[in-house]
Amino acid sequence: MSAMTGMNVGFVGLGAMGKAMAANLVRAGHSVQVWNRSPAPVQALVAQGATAAPDLETVFANDVVISMLSDDAAVESVLLEPELLANASATVHVNMATVSVALAQRAADLHAKYGLGYLAAPVLGRSEVAAAGKLNILAAGDSTLLDHVEPLFTAMGQRTWRQGDQPHHANTIKIAGNYLVACAIESLAEACTLAEATGAQPSELIDVLTHTIFPGPVYTGYGTMVAEQRYEPAGFRLALGLKDVTLALTAGADSRVPLPFGSVLRDAFIDAIAHGDADRDWTAVADVTRRRAALPRRHDGPFH
Amino acid sequence: MSAMTGMNVGFVGLGAMGKAMAANLVRAGHSVQVWNRSPAPVQALVAQGATAAPDLETVFANDVVISMLSDDAAVESVLLEPELLANASATVHVNMATVSVALAQRAADLHAKYGLGYLAAPVLGRSEVAAAGKLNILAAGDSTLLDHVEPLFTAMGQRTWRQGDQPHHANTIKIAGNYLVACAIESLAEACTLAEATGAQPSELIDVLTHTIFPGPVYTGYGTMVAEQRYEPAGFRLALGLKDVTLALTAGADSRVPLPFGSVLRDAFIDAIAHGDADRDWTAVADVTRRRAALPRRHDGPFH
Amino acid sequence: MSAMTGMNVGFVGLGAMGKAMAANLVRAGHSVQVWNRSPAPVQALVAQGATAAPDLETVFANDVVISMLSDDAAVESVLLEPELLANASATVHVNMATVSVALAQRAADLHAKYGLGYLAAPVLGRSEVAAAGKLNILAAGDSTLLDHVEPLFTAMGQRTWRQGDQPHHANTIKIAGNYLVACAIESLAEACTLAEATGAQPSELIDVLTHTIFPGPVYTGYGTMVAEQRYEPAGFRLALGLKDVTLALTAGADSRVPLPFGSVLRDAFIDAIAHGDADRDWTAVADVTRRRAALPRRHDGPFH
Amino acid sequence: MSAMTGMNVGFVGLGAMGKAMAANLVRAGHSVQVWNRSPAPVQALVAQGATAAPDLETVFANDVVISMLSDDAAVESVLLEPELLANASATVHVNMATVSVALAQRAADLHAKYGLGYLAAPVLGRSEVAAAGKLNILAAGDSTLLDHVEPLFTAMGQRTWRQGDQPHHANTIKIAGNYLVACAIESLAEACTLAEATGAQPSELIDVLTHTIFPGPVYTGYGTMVAEQRYEPAGFRLALGLKDVTLALTAGADSRVPLPFGSVLRDAFIDAIAHGDADRDWTAVADVTRRRAALPRRHDGPFH
Repeated sequence: MSAMTGMNVGFVGLGAMGKAMAANLVRAGHSVQVWNRSPAPVQALVAQGATAAPDLETVFANDVVISMLSDDAAVESVLLEPELLANASATVHVNMATVSVALAQRAADLHAKYGLGYLAAPVLGRSEVAAAGKLNILAAGDSTLLDHVEPLFTAMGQRTWRQGDQPHHANTIKIAGNYLVACAIESLAEACTLAEATGAQPSELIDVLTHTIFPGPVYTGYGTMVAEQRYEPAGFRLALGLKDVTLALTAGADSRVPLPFGSVLRDAFIDAIAHGDADRDWTAVADVTRRRAALPRRHDGPFH
Repeated sequence: MSAMTGMNVGFVGLGAMGKAMAANLVRAGHSVQVWNRSPAPVQALVAQGATAAPDLETVFANDVVISMLSDDAAVESVLLEPELLANASATVHVNMATVSVALAQRAADLHAKYGLGYLAAPVLGRSEVAAAGKLNILAAGDSTLLDHVEPLFTAMGQRTWRQGDQPHHANTIKIAGNYLVACAIESLAEACTLAEATGAQPSELIDVLTHTIFPGPVYTGYGTMVAEQRYEPAGFRLALGLKDVTLALTAGADSRVPLPFGSVLRDAFIDAIAHGDADRDWTAVADVTRRRAALPRRHDGPFH
Repeated sequence: MSAMTGMNVGFVGLGAMGKAMAANLVRAGHSVQVWNRSPAPVQALVAQGATAAPDLETVFANDVVISMLSDDAAVESVLLEPELLANASATVHVNMATVSVALAQRAADLHAKYGLGYLAAPVLGRSEVAAAGKLNILAAGDSTLLDHVEPLFTAMGQRTWRQGDQPHHANTIKIAGNYLVACAIESLAEACTLAEATGAQPSELIDVLTHTIFPGPVYTGYGTMVAEQRYEPAGFRLALGLKDVTLALTAGADSRVPLPFGSVLRDAFIDAIAHGDADRDWTAVADVTRRRAALPRRHDGPFH
Repeated sequence: MSAMTGMNVGFVGLGAMGKAMAANLVRAGHSVQVWNRSPAPVQALVAQGATAAPDLETVFANDVVISMLSDDAAVESVLLEPELLANASATVHVNMATVSVALAQRAADLHAKYGLGYLAAPVLGRSEVAAAGKLNILAAGDSTLLDHVEPLFTAMGQRTWRQGDQPHHANTIKIAGNYLVACAIESLAEACTLAEATGAQPSELIDVLTHTIFPGPVYTGYGTMVAEQRYEPAGFRLALGLKDVTLALTAGADSRVPLPFGSVLRDAFIDAIAHGDADRDWTAVADVTRRRAALPRRHDGPFH
């Protein structure tokens, strides 16, 4: 089996990210068998050339299994079943979800117990980046297995960033990356609120900084949303932001690392959710900063 | 008087930044008369073509006065003297220092009282950027005056970013910009410490992020220093970092804006100074994060 | 069966607290059947007049079951077994442990499902208070059931504080009470460190305050320990302190209540544990405050 | 001159505290000459048996000068005048105001320079306590001078707590004491908000705790106000609360002591002031905690 002729891939989890990634695998010539809890996305993928797996056991009979589930609970309930893993004939399971460091370690141990290869490969990039096949893939685990699945990564991403042979290290890097994004959003919110309260223009602040010392998508994209108080459409839901901050805090607690910025973030996200903003973009945490300063909230959004 | 033939400029404050800026003015063909509290930098500038002002009164007889002093106290004691301003014949005083919003407002009022033009024009960029004439200049105040001094900005910077007609708004933007840098450093410290404590490589984290979603000098430069625990030489002293965070917190308090990240930063910088790191680069605040997690401190630096 | 002649009580969990409480029930003339995971405390109670239960099913055949387990996990695994509850003939189960609000709600629901009465009755007071029968008991649930077990509370405590008919409200009050103690310890640590660093005497600070506006056991007892940096013997282990702070933070997150002091506490306890203080008294969190200020740590304790 | 026959006392500052204290000195048989910036309180004291001082020079010709001014700025401008101190014939000046540690040190140095005795004697207790002569007086400085003025302390307070021979240590203790009160208020606010949000009764929480482990005026008085959301009348204005927290933070920064609870308090008080609560009692900071959790604010107060 080679990348030339395409690989046999089982794909679990067809959310916004997963369906884009699976489609790119089909497009690249791989034989993709998909499974999803709800049927609609399965039909869409079948229409694009995938086949529908009757059950998870069948998925795990492919050479490679890729999973892209939403969180720890989903991975735990769907995939970490001893019977499923014990009977699997796949070479390797590549878990591309953003999960906790603890779950990643438990998953690696469980797969090892049943003689099944396990790789962690969380990604940087949202669904539109996934659709364009431009993900940055943070991959860790056995290097022979990483070589084996590289053609699949190539079909889904613009680059693979190897993080060593311990799968959970890739999860740590992913969590740390999202943590930095959340910190950037909060700091942008505070800086813009300070500017506004003293009479200066937040949009000018963002303009000068993103054209000088803070280039790149995070400061430019989120900075503009914060400066304009435009929190819809939600590219990344605020409730998921709290989930990701919590992943960092939990990893920190487990490793005895206090994360004071993370503690501020957690309180701010809870505050935002208390005020009904769980489903807005996570930049809506800026409204918490504005509310603390008694600045008026924009009233033209759909949530008010 | 035009930029073609050069302008008459009085320049006050020849620290690391000021001497580089004044030298660029000389190089651009302007007639520059310099003043500094200590004599050595004056002689260096004279050797490059400037003239030495016998006193501040003489400096303020030039068409344009530019000042680049270290902090509020220096500006207050050197420049905000009623007698000096009352007798000045200059068209405009351009204050390029990083000062508080409150001082900027007081300075603008005082200059207005004596019929002297006043502009605020703090800069982004350290001394090596100043030497290269590549500063980004954040300028605010009367637009006619801004037009008048633009040739001087051109000689010192790569671009002028106008921030409206209220001088202190430029100071707010500058303070907010430095605040964002301080926040980025702390968040990098926390993310790298988390990575290290869980066994991953901080340098890998910085590598992947600065080549993807966090490009630019702040994350690349400071991220590398944090990941490598290399806090010397001090590009920007940690004690000055506390000064700048305090400028933001004070502006926030005056405008009733809580800044919780700023509060964390203030505590962290005080902690660093308590441990003897006032004169290291402000990235040394990362050692506070490491100490909280009981991670070992590198022992090869000159301070330990 | 009446309080005059003694009640039939099954007692689960003979840790430091439970064994003292069960002994007081025996002493008050009740018929007490005990169960514990490890056998030694069972023998001790039998020597005092209790009987040993062969299994949990037997315990749940008594009129009243009282449990005093260490945490959520223990309650979950030992008591929340559907089969156990379905077959129980007891009138009521009184859960006196400090557990999470969420677990308390789940436990109440599960008992209701099987037609078994359920009361929450966490306590204020450590093991020496329990031994003296002087606990303050925070009790909530059905008032008829509360009346029924009041003779047992009378044997164990100095007073019962009823908190309404929702069992989990008693747990909330208990968690909030412990939260206030943790906050008091941290604030004492900060105040004492400030006093010491400015040259004043922490012990003088504690002396004047506890004799004026801050009387009572918390400020007097913990204040003295903090002022003297005496963190042994551990009346309450620091690791349990982090558990209790986490119970408050989790209840807060579930109810959308940001708790910024709690976030500071969590970071401080993690810091203390990173430095090896998990088994010292929770006042050892004061060493975190001292370390931030670079004050020397006492070197005469057994941990150094 | 003995306490039997009364002492000659100059008294500066007749605010709510000062006028009650001066009246008690008169009542105890001392000869009291008063000075105040505004005349009304002077007349009130004269009606009670004091005499009006024509100027501050005359005040400083008494044997003992007592001052009770509102803050550092008032002390600085009214009392720390070299000419005034140089010409004073008083034995000792007793500064009973709550001032910064830095100002206390400067004041002690300045008095020493002019050969004038200086004591610091800040107090615990509000105006009604002052009126009842029940203040707790924290006194520090030369012990002979302290002995000399003890009869005056006896007239104003229930007890004098000596804090050594460095005057500023008494100020540190006072600042640390107020800091503990502010911390207690915030922790009560968080605990009550947690209780309310989970459906329990904040008033029950306060009832059980103040009758068990948290007796005393701070938890009982402030706890009740917080639980009932009753922030008027203002026994201590919230704006003064921010001033006192800032005194602690500044003393901390000067001594290199991070105070993370203080940082949270500062942000919370700024938030409260941004929402118009500067003149309510400082327990109104509890509304910040409630607002973070999106709990409704009571609408029957005079400010809303």
